[in-house]
Amino acid sequence: MFQVLHKDPESKARCGLMSLAHGDVETPIFMPVGTQGSVKTLHPEELDLLGSQIILGNTYHLWLRPGHELIRDLGGLHDFTTWQKPMLTDSGGFQVWSLAKLRKITEEGVRFQNHLDGSKMLLTPELSMEIQASLGSDIAMLFDECPPYPCEQKYAEESLALTTRWAQRCKDWVEKNQPRSGEGKQRHFGIVQGSIWADLREQSARELVDIGFDGYAVGGVSVGEPEHEMFRAIENAVPFLPEDKPRYAMGLGTPPQILEMISRGVDMFDCVMPTRVARHGQAFTLDGPIHIKNLEFERDQGPLCESAHPHVARFSRAYIRHLFRAGEILALRLLSFHNLHFFLRLAANSRQAIREGNFLEFKESFIRRYNASKDT
Amino acid sequence: MFQVLHKDPESKARCGLMSLAHGDVETPIFMPVGTQGSVKTLHPEELDLLGSQIILGNTYHLWLRPGHELIRDLGGLHDFTTWQKPMLTDSGGFQVWSLAKLRKITEEGVRFQNHLDGSKMLLTPELSMEIQASLGSDIAMLFDECPPYPCEQKYAEESLALTTRWAQRCKDWVEKNQPRSGEGKQRHFGIVQGSIWADLREQSARELVDIGFDGYAVGGVSVGEPEHEMFRAIENAVPFLPEDKPRYAMGLGTPPQILEMISRGVDMFDCVMPTRVARHGQAFTLDGPIHIKNLEFERDQGPLCESAHPHVARFSRAYIRHLFRAGEILALRLLSFHNLHFFLRLAANSRQAIREGNFLEFKESFIRRYNASKDT
Ligand SMILES: [Zn+2]
Ligand SMILES: [Zn+2]
Repeated sequence: MFQVLHKDPESKARCGLMSLAHGDVETPIFMPVGTQGSVKTLHPEELDLLGSQIILGNTYHLWLRPGHELIRDLGGLHDFTTWQKPMLTDSGGFQVWSLAKLRKITEEGVRFQNHLDGSKMLLTPELSMEIQASLGSDIAMLFDECPPYPCEQKYAEESLALTTRWAQRCKDWVEKNQPRSGEGKQRHFGIVQGSIWADLREQSARELVDIGFDGYAVGGVSVGEPEHEMFRAIENAVPFLPEDKPRYAMGLGTPPQILEMISRGVDMFDCVMPTRVARHGQAFTLDGPIHIKNLEFERDQGPLCESAHPHVARFSRAYIRHLFRAGEILALRLLSFHNLHFFLRLAANSRQAIREGNFLEFKESFIRRYNASKDT
Repeated sequence: MFQVLHKDPESKARCGLMSLAHGDVETPIFMPVGTQGSVKTLHPEELDLLGSQIILGNTYHLWLRPGHELIRDLGGLHDFTTWQKPMLTDSGGFQVWSLAKLRKITEEGVRFQNHLDGSKMLLTPELSMEIQASLGSDIAMLFDECPPYPCEQKYAEESLALTTRWAQRCKDWVEKNQPRSGEGKQRHFGIVQGSIWADLREQSARELVDIGFDGYAVGGVSVGEPEHEMFRAIENAVPFLPEDKPRYAMGLGTPPQILEMISRGVDMFDCVMPTRVARHGQAFTLDGPIHIKNLEFERDQGPLCESAHPHVARFSRAYIRHLFRAGEILALRLLSFHNLHFFLRLAANSRQAIREGNFLEFKESFIRRYNASKDT
């Protein structure tokens, strides 16, 4: 299911090929997020233009609306959305944690009131697996408990133990029900927890590997911790994860952070940030982010970035600024498309640099230029 | 500049070819409206997919933001928006009438407070021509006074006289300044007023034709009058307009109304309605409009309409309903694209029917089916 094709001699970076039910995915890869069955503002034709190989769907959102049974009855998330390439679904746990109200975690699962109409609901490891099987994603994530940052070591220990027990229940459900996703078998990824403690990260990784999954994510990062703790969480988990399984850093990060994590052996990334900041007028450029609303772009005839895709590069910054100020949806489309292009291009260029054996050089020169305007 | 190619033997319908600075336009034609330099929610590539031959820009909006001088300095509205096919700009008069506050009409022009920041502004016939010349549209509309419905006959008479005097001032400005739009000469259309009075419509048409313009619009329609008055306004103006000039019914209408007006000799249409109702969840179909929010579409696997373009037809009504309820921008894109496709296809099918000599049959059968579900 996963093959490492190239290894960077100077770092832990690697190129791989992941074979999934709906196609192959080259790693390192950035996965655009389609929370509610749509990558915000974009048409699937545009995801193709972007060269998106795999996108994300959010179990929590799709479970609440339109409901996983409706999606299953209409042929699964691929047929429902018409996106016929690989999809990954998260477990719903993170969204319960960040969106729902009155959460109560028990051995059984999480009770909460949903954010749409306040109904009381219960999400368990088995139900999360069942929903993801109904959605028919290529990769399903195990249901975990994500400790906040900061948290007590005792809380992190107990949370980790619960995550392991839940992982086993997920595995049991999968072995019993053998869910199939469209043309092929659904894959299942465990999620390493353990907060900032190295021994807990190691313990979590070892326990999940013992149960045995198709890939491993590092969870509990990007929850408010400083950047060095984020990198340490990766460094503390990766040595205990198998070489021949994909590694996924959930919900990350800035372009420099992604390069840092690739150099630490991470293969997969997802983040809502590129499309979210787009809706606030921010565009990524090789010289760092810009805010298109700024007066300096009023008569700027250049494209958003010299690296912009032709779909966006045909427009001047002056025009996009006008559209954004006038509240035109096209501005949100162009900025969202551009920012995703920037992240997908970053992943593609990383793959090429690893293949060519100069990843660290690529990383350093990208980060130097990206941060240069901050320093001046 | 305009050639009549086919005439329907049973009605006043006709097919024509209009040659403009940025290309040719086949008539009858529907023109999507790009109020602020963008047809709402759509990328110019999608306007190409739709087969849009000409789009509209709104002088009032572009004058206020980003300003006609900025657009002129950046190469005109075509280069600013990257739309390189024909464009028509209105005079700004209608928007002052419908959006601005504290309007005061004098011989000089209209004083008002703009709707963005309340600044006091003055729009005159000469300034409207100058703004439109700066925008560089292929067709500029003359600055007119549009009487409300209903209005006193005396008001309509005086308003018509003012419109004629303003038309002469526009013509004088154009002859003196010889504005050029990009690659070629800008064309200028007069606007026939006269409210519901046949003799006033005749007088207005004759006076404008005496001054001499490249085409003629019928204005002061779709301002709240009953449908039969709208048709009568067209019937009262068309006999006094030259056969060899294009005729334009401004701001109209429903699909049946457009067919009725084509049969009365109208060549050009524009309307914000298809994109506006799309943003409220309405889609046009051959069986009349539908509201995608309705529960009946919850599990409907069919496309929006059997006539839908592949760009939209790949998605089920169930999916588009979900996107719309979830507040996803893709829903607005798909509905806007579809509705414009419906109107552009209506114009294309009308042209074909006129060429084939069966326009009235096409019109009757379209309207019968379109209205059938209303009657049951
Ligand atoms: Zn499939
Ligand atoms: Zn041009």
